[in-house]
Amino acid sequence: MKNVPVVLTGYGNVGRAFVRLLTDKRLECARRYGLELDLKAVLRRSGGWLAKGCDDAEALTSSGASVALESHPGWVPGLTFDSAIDRLTPGVLAEATPSNWRTGEPQLAFLHSALDAGWNVAAASKGALVVDFRGLTEKARSRGLALKYSGATAAALPTVDVAAIALAGASIERIDGILTGTTNYILSRLEAGESFADALIEAQAKGIAELDPSMDIDGWDTACKLLLISNAAAGTNLTLADIPVEGIRNVSAAMLADARKEGRAVKLLGRLTIQDGRVKAEVKPVAVEPSHPLHGITGTVKGIAFMTDTMGTVVVTGGKSDPRGTAAAMLKDIINIYR
Amino acid sequence: MKNVPVVLTGYGNVGRAFVRLLTDKRLECARRYGLELDLKAVLRRSGGWLAKGCDDAEALTSSGASVALESHPGWVPGLTFDSAIDRLTPGVLAEATPSNWRTGEPQLAFLHSALDAGWNVAAASKGALVVDFRGLTEKARSRGLALKYSGATAAALPTVDVAAIALAGASIERIDGILTGTTNYILSRLEAGESFADALIEAQAKGIAELDPSMDIDGWDTACKLLLISNAAAGTNLTLADIPVEGIRNVSAAMLADARKEGRAVKLLGRLTIQDGRVKAEVKPVAVEPSHPLHGITGTVKGIAFMTDTMGTVVVTGGKSDPRGTAAAMLKDIINIYR
Repeated sequence: MKNVPVVLTGYGNVGRAFVRLLTDKRLECARRYGLELDLKAVLRRSGGWLAKGCDDAEALTSSGASVALESHPGWVPGLTFDSAIDRLTPGVLAEATPSNWRTGEPQLAFLHSALDAGWNVAAASKGALVVDFRGLTEKARSRGLALKYSGATAAALPTVDVAAIALAGASIERIDGILTGTTNYILSRLEAGESFADALIEAQAKGIAELDPSMDIDGWDTACKLLLISNAAAGTNLTLADIPVEGIRNVSAAMLADARKEGRAVKLLGRLTIQDGRVKAEVKPVAVEPSHPLHGITGTVKGIAFMTDTMGTVVVTGGKSDPRGTAAAMLKDIINIYR
Repeated sequence: MKNVPVVLTGYGNVGRAFVRLLTDKRLECARRYGLELDLKAVLRRSGGWLAKGCDDAEALTSSGASVALESHPGWVPGLTFDSAIDRLTPGVLAEATPSNWRTGEPQLAFLHSALDAGWNVAAASKGALVVDFRGLTEKARSRGLALKYSGATAAALPTVDVAAIALAGASIERIDGILTGTTNYILSRLEAGESFADALIEAQAKGIAELDPSMDIDGWDTACKLLLISNAAAGTNLTLADIPVEGIRNVSAAMLADARKEGRAVKLLGRLTIQDGRVKAEVKPVAVEPSHPLHGITGTVKGIAFMTDTMGTVVVTGGKSDPRGTAAAMLKDIINIYR
């Protein structure tokens, strides 16, 4: 049995789902992978919780989201990330703080500190990776550490690991992705004749869209994921500045009607094209043909199509779009680091 | 750069495509993975070809399928598999001899010999694995060797590696697979109103169906793949005797018409269900609902849906269904063994 120290940053919906999942999967991880995932600390803005022993961690993980972290024994007000990891044998950082994709903070500092201190990383937040993809991946590589981010790249929909493992040896010529469940859901409602405003309110009421939905609707969430997937899967070196981004605010009833007449469906696509070494990435609404592999992907479902030289087109769709699905993607990364 | 000795058994369509692919991907394998895949021998029933030096291997791989293997320098009439690998430093066996799924021979002997002699395996043939899955996988595990068979489990459609890597930590509760392009093509033609006999003749004329198509049509090809995928991905211990198999010979116009009336589509599914530890595997034509993730998969396209506990349903479709696609799956396995 291999013991893996785990530190979690962020204790919102995803962080809490991750803690719950660690409990639910404890026996299975031991049996199937020989791994004992040992939660040592949970950091939030206001401080951190430190496990004092096995029993303490067990109490936290089995109570899951039901009791406030701050009322558990081991809560240290004002505890910082650096001082928490200083006390611990390096393991893996599970990073789930909210994502600021313009500055990358606060995760950017966490990730650099963690890598500097010899920790592997399984990230669910995009911000830091989008802002400093090259710096972080090169730091991880030069130190022989794993930097994984399935949780940040469409979560339970597998994207980067399919490209790296299942398409090994094939060259990716194009990627088309429906990478944001929210926008796909709203487009499906527009197709059904709803107004944009109504569709958005409905998505917010169902908890699908954020209260500030602009990141999704204006295409930036898709662009961030496209950047990470392209850089990881196709070896590109994209920054956000390289990606023209158009969201779904201006998708008109006329555009939808025109598309429908020809059997096409409007999707917000993140698209990467690599032709003769020239890389082009963009995010925009596209009226896709019925023969397009993502034509039938509706509602909150996501999907990605890899067009390759030797394996043809390989399409992955589905994957749970909720905090537990994202937590499952983080757990997957941790298992794949240590198995 | 890591040098990897490669021995190929079988020089039919897949074997020749594999040799061609080694040439085409030589530089890319070196650049992306630091691997030099070094073809040392090719064995067929009548004898074998042995590389005498780098130039010799290069001459073979760059001429590809265009020149008969027997007329190359290095051809040794009557050379056996065992005497060929006896002379070589162990590397990886690329196994592409025609598959006999009742006896497993001749591959069964090759695979045991190869594992006994310390060779890793990337197999494209199903026979030996179906007949002796447990014996072969346990031999590989006990010797610390890799035994991979993407080429035998729907080839360029990723199945076992998606389950092992992209779904790590999730429990598979059901697998539904359209695993044979031939039968899916014939069903699509039947849907379009053709007779079974005409659809079969058309599939054979297009090179989609074998001249003896019974293995596909009667469901055994699907059953063999379901067995391998289930045992690898869900840890079952199925043998062919555990799988009731019904092919598509008796799919009637009435069944198709009934399905169509309700918007359903008839597919030959390989299905695994795991509920409360009870495992059930079967192959039969199923009229799937429009909401089923494989409903829209038509023609020679294949697809697989994994229903999981924590990641929801993850669906993979597509993947080239030709010898080059199968060769690409073998190459992928080799890269993943040595990267």
